[in-house]
Amino acid sequence: MATNQEPSSPRVNVRRLPARGHYDPAVIGAILDEALLVHMGFEAHGQVYVIPTLHVRVGDQLILHGSPASRMLKTLKEGVPCCATATLVDGIVLARSAFNHSMNYRSVVVLGVAREVVDRDEKYTALHALVEKTVVGRSDGCRMPSEEELRRTTVLTMSMTEASAKIRSGPPGDDEPDYALSHWAGVLPIRTEIGAPEPDPRLDPSIEIPAHVRRKTHRG
Amino acid sequence: MATNQEPSSPRVNVRRLPARGHYDPAVIGAILDEALLVHMGFEAHGQVYVIPTLHVRVGDQLILHGSPASRMLKTLKEGVPCCATATLVDGIVLARSAFNHSMNYRSVVVLGVAREVVDRDEKYTALHALVEKTVVGRSDGCRMPSEEELRRTTVLTMSMTEASAKIRSGPPGDDEPDYALSHWAGVLPIRTEIGAPEPDPRLDPSIEIPAHVRRKTHRG
Repeated sequence: MATNQEPSSPRVNVRRLPARGHYDPAVIGAILDEALLVHMGFEAHGQVYVIPTLHVRVGDQLILHGSPASRMLKTLKEGVPCCATATLVDGIVLARSAFNHSMNYRSVVVLGVAREVVDRDEKYTALHALVEKTVVGRSDGCRMPSEEELRRTTVLTMSMTEASAKIRSGPPGDDEPDYALSHWAGVLPIRTEIGAPEPDPRLDPSIEIPAHVRRKTHRG
Repeated sequence: MATNQEPSSPRVNVRRLPARGHYDPAVIGAILDEALLVHMGFEAHGQVYVIPTLHVRVGDQLILHGSPASRMLKTLKEGVPCCATATLVDGIVLARSAFNHSMNYRSVVVLGVAREVVDRDEKYTALHALVEKTVVGRSDGCRMPSEEELRRTTVLTMSMTEASAKIRSGPPGDDEPDYALSHWAGVLPIRTEIGAPEPDPRLDPSIEIPAHVRRKTHRG
């Protein structure tokens, strides 16, 4: 495999199975863009916590948001070291040996510190990007935040200068003697499917499903 | 909503939106059993890392495994405080207001410390459970670990005494005045689909897809 560019810091160098490491910002960005959420790791009172949260990538910034009452956001905005990890699972890899069973996946680890976005316009732009991340076109299909709602939302941003991706793809890799065994081997592909929209029970039945919602529905 | 039992410790009490908190071991166990992986959080050299890894729940134990060379396993087996989080995403919740957009999800957070499993038979049993977790029946459909492979695998176990689940389900919850708006609102359901098995290119074509693999393939 090619060198996959170089890690931006030794802390994000993929040391185990280095051929799976990727440092190209385009590869890292594409995984973050496809992932529905990140798992944020941080420490509080001597305990590490890992909390799932929505995110959006804008350029080389990773944006998070939530309630000002959130312990995670209150902790992160103090500038403690944190880690955002996104994982896409692409398949279950069934080898002839139990030992070589694996998963096909694409994951990204971002290390750094977050800072709070306090500027009103920068905050609005970040929330706009978060809404568009869930469904492209949604910002025109809903009521965007009021000034009061903007104040009631904390927005954080984290620079992606220290980031790496790890990718496994393809068939199982068995030890050479095991290829003579009669066990079935291969990959069970895994896809995320978005099903038919389920209207809110309180929705006015005359309101049709808009194009931006129809476009989002697909089968893997 | 009911009280969802009581948290086993204040550290796993769901404080934000407490109605979403669940402490019933059966609820927690079902989420871990359905999740394909957990995100493990731990600290090393002053930096928090969050790494995706396969897991299996056996009773009240969460089992992890990997290479003895893995930094994560080497760090965790020292008994440092860690956190295992599993997240299932069930839907994108589109409210009339951007502010009330959300996700439907089921997540579990387990806090504690891991210990290494060193007993040979206990290790074998743990790896058997990990293989069965990927595909039920697979342990009879592959070559199980040799003594050498057992030695080349580190197995950790983590007690689930401190754990909680957080669940959101159902339609969007808009602010009352917003129900008069003409925006479409509802849920886009998300499902994980396992597609048709992809045989290893090196598979003997006379080997048919076994029942345990066929059973795992499904839509939604």
